[in-house]
Amino acid sequence: MILPVILSGGAGTRLWPLSREAAPKPFMILPDGGTLLGKTAARALALPGVETVVTVTNRDHYFATRDVYALLGDARTEGAPFLLEPFGRNTAPAIALAALHAESLGRPGTVMLILPADHLILDQAAFAAAVAIAVKAARSGKIATFGISPTHPETGFGYIECGEAQHDRVHPAARFVEKPQLATAQEYLASGRYVWNSGMFAFTPATVLAAFARHAPELLASARQCWQKLQAGAAAGQAALEIDGTLFKALPDISIDYAVMEGAAAQGEVVVVRGGFDWSDVGSWKAVSELVGADKDGNRGQGERVAIATRDTYVHAEDRVVATVGVQNLVIVDTPDAVLVAHRDHLQKVKEVVGELKSRGHESYRLHKTVARPWGAYTVLQEGPGFKIKRIEVKPGASLSLQLHHRRSEHWVVVRGVAEVTCGERTYAVRANESTFIPIETRHRLANTTTEALVMIEVQCGDYLGEDDIVRFDDHYGRAPAAAAAR
Amino acid sequence: MILPVILSGGAGTRLWPLSREAAPKPFMILPDGGTLLGKTAARALALPGVETVVTVTNRDHYFATRDVYALLGDARTEGAPFLLEPFGRNTAPAIALAALHAESLGRPGTVMLILPADHLILDQAAFAAAVAIAVKAARSGKIATFGISPTHPETGFGYIECGEAQHDRVHPAARFVEKPQLATAQEYLASGRYVWNSGMFAFTPATVLAAFARHAPELLASARQCWQKLQAGAAAGQAALEIDGTLFKALPDISIDYAVMEGAAAQGEVVVVRGGFDWSDVGSWKAVSELVGADKDGNRGQGERVAIATRDTYVHAEDRVVATVGVQNLVIVDTPDAVLVAHRDHLQKVKEVVGELKSRGHESYRLHKTVARPWGAYTVLQEGPGFKIKRIEVKPGASLSLQLHHRRSEHWVVVRGVAEVTCGERTYAVRANESTFIPIETRHRLANTTTEALVMIEVQCGDYLGEDDIVRFDDHYGRAPAAAAAR
Repeated sequence: MILPVILSGGAGTRLWPLSREAAPKPFMILPDGGTLLGKTAARALALPGVETVVTVTNRDHYFATRDVYALLGDARTEGAPFLLEPFGRNTAPAIALAALHAESLGRPGTVMLILPADHLILDQAAFAAAVAIAVKAARSGKIATFGISPTHPETGFGYIECGEAQHDRVHPAARFVEKPQLATAQEYLASGRYVWNSGMFAFTPATVLAAFARHAPELLASARQCWQKLQAGAAAGQAALEIDGTLFKALPDISIDYAVMEGAAAQGEVVVVRGGFDWSDVGSWKAVSELVGADKDGNRGQGERVAIATRDTYVHAEDRVVATVGVQNLVIVDTPDAVLVAHRDHLQKVKEVVGELKSRGHESYRLHKTVARPWGAYTVLQEGPGFKIKRIEVKPGASLSLQLHHRRSEHWVVVRGVAEVTCGERTYAVRANESTFIPIETRHRLANTTTEALVMIEVQCGDYLGEDDIVRFDDHYGRAPAAAAAR
Repeated sequence: MILPVILSGGAGTRLWPLSREAAPKPFMILPDGGTLLGKTAARALALPGVETVVTVTNRDHYFATRDVYALLGDARTEGAPFLLEPFGRNTAPAIALAALHAESLGRPGTVMLILPADHLILDQAAFAAAVAIAVKAARSGKIATFGISPTHPETGFGYIECGEAQHDRVHPAARFVEKPQLATAQEYLASGRYVWNSGMFAFTPATVLAAFARHAPELLASARQCWQKLQAGAAAGQAALEIDGTLFKALPDISIDYAVMEGAAAQGEVVVVRGGFDWSDVGSWKAVSELVGADKDGNRGQGERVAIATRDTYVHAEDRVVATVGVQNLVIVDTPDAVLVAHRDHLQKVKEVVGELKSRGHESYRLHKTVARPWGAYTVLQEGPGFKIKRIEVKPGASLSLQLHHRRSEHWVVVRGVAEVTCGERTYAVRANESTFIPIETRHRLANTTTEALVMIEVQCGDYLGEDDIVRFDDHYGRAPAAAAAR
């Protein structure tokens, strides 16, 4: 059995303003409408011998991840296991915990396939062929990595030095090296002996746990403690396992390359499978912009655009028109609350914008204007003194928490679907073109018991309209009674 | 008496997206919060001997113009005369009608001062000094123009060739020339004999009407017909005079320079007063961007901006953050429904964007997201299938028309102030944090009888939500029963 382990982390600050702290790179909607996370899961599920996928991600992204998987329409994602991190801790702790999970399944012959959720690979057949080779190597007790033949002296990736090919496309991994300077990258490219380190691996749980034991024994010991607490606290059949914060904090914030691979390679435990597939880690706007074709002037993009005397420019437009005049080599990304205008040669510096916004306390580093919630999403349409207007969309079958507000009342107008409203002691239906009023200090709940989406406009009135003015009495998503997150 | 005549026309398509067809250049909010129209009126009112101002503008801009004047807090603008054009017709017809109006006042010694509404002059004292010289020349029977000493070989302006100075700063105008090629403009600059044609003039009604009679007799005859119909139809004391469309159509669409000045200059009837003041016609984003100071990197702008490795770039941000990375020499203008990214050297081509949007039928060439109305303004916050959400602001004392809709009902939630709502046979007050419902096919009216602004959120529900689904029964602004404009 192949057990894909999807590592879904990484803020993607170089992809601001589409990527935000609360809606990071794996969830970003790509020009084709898909997400990197969804594509990664689909790629894994399309491999032969896959029964389920394990996902290691931040617990804040659990519901959003499930939403992405639900779009795949693949029954194997229902009830698929999750290891939920309380905060980010790099790849070594995530892989150690995933290996302990895989070991606990007690299925001999299982090969774990580690897949970061922010990679893009278009050639599924070539990918599957490389996986088959890697799985064979893994079954023979090796740690198999996937190396990508470099096409240019990239300084943004780590490299692996390959030994002489043993057979097929399999080389011993002589050495892992971190992101090089340009001159070194050029030497690597010229030598033909170096490949890009893709961050994808295949190994059995026993192999990787033995490697952890040899090269990072303390990390493994801490991971085992985490795992034991996780197992002890989990109900039978519980799919989503929340990692304990205090124990997780004891794990070092280091990568699998540094914790295990460098030492394991030196001892001949690692092989490189040269991937015969296209590969991109979609690290910056350059990679995203190249996902769509260019017109005769080299312009690319999506949405309503007007290009006058414009060349080699990428424009991402959402609900506004974006006009360019006399410019070239720009990347322009327009979102409901932030606009980026960057030169193609400076796209790595986009992350500095995020740092600056964070230091200013500006919301746009963290949240999109439309905020995803387990029950659906809300968009703040306008705020003014004493009022706030939201569009609220509730998924079929979903329900907000039973709650009350101390400082605001709410006017609800349903514009699509049917709302089941609880207000005080009454529960009643509100249909499209009907409205209701939720007085201040009144317990209320909004639910959608139908099979169609519910869309509602909420006008809040009050002297304080912060998301933290909420008292939760009951919540289907485990957020009652005093969670900090809104609703 | 000096009678300023403000010519408020000009779309300002090179200033898109701040300038729109329905909210053109004179109304654009400048970086200092003012408007070109307001500044022009204030400049006129600050001159000695001014009792009122005459405004020639499109009838669609009457209420907006009054709003701008009201902000000046000068009693002389109350009841000031307006000549309202049914459509744009260049400067010659406008000036002919203004001269007929001035003649009809029967005030000997009146000097008309023609002021286009899209000029910016900061040095009021120098302006007043030049006006005093021009008025003296006008009283002696001359047509006086204001010439600006050129600072660079501008190809975007017309020029006037000056004869030998007669006295003070007064020259005979030898020749009016249209916008030159660069080489010619360079010659003009080098010669020292040419000034920029500012488009401002001073003359008595008798002088300019005599010049029309000599150089454009047919135009004057048509203008007289217009004027006679206008006077015949006007009530005693009526300040706003609407020009008849059929008669106005007979007037040629030409400039005063072409219709009168070129011929008059050839016959020695025109003098040039060299203006000793700063002057800008704010024709493009270059001029607007220079209204604010630059930081040490040459960056200018307003609103929430993040500049990383950015130089010599102007950013106009409204309610979104605009981030720039690795760019230079750009002008970036962000508005609620459109974004412009243009290179400084191509700002004249911004008008091509407007042409393209017009040909696509895209609303953003015509309207802002917030649309001004005589009674206040509305902003479409969101539209979706079957619903539309508007924020509606009603000025103190203002009232929308008594109206009904055949295809939609409306939910109103008041968030600030008090609404007086008529719905069917009832009239009642709706206060902040209260709501009401206007059923389909029901006569209704919204009024603000208080002295504070009223802000209301309207959620429209229906199968058709166009602005043209409106039946008006009574309107305080003369738009009933069948005006095409919304509300």
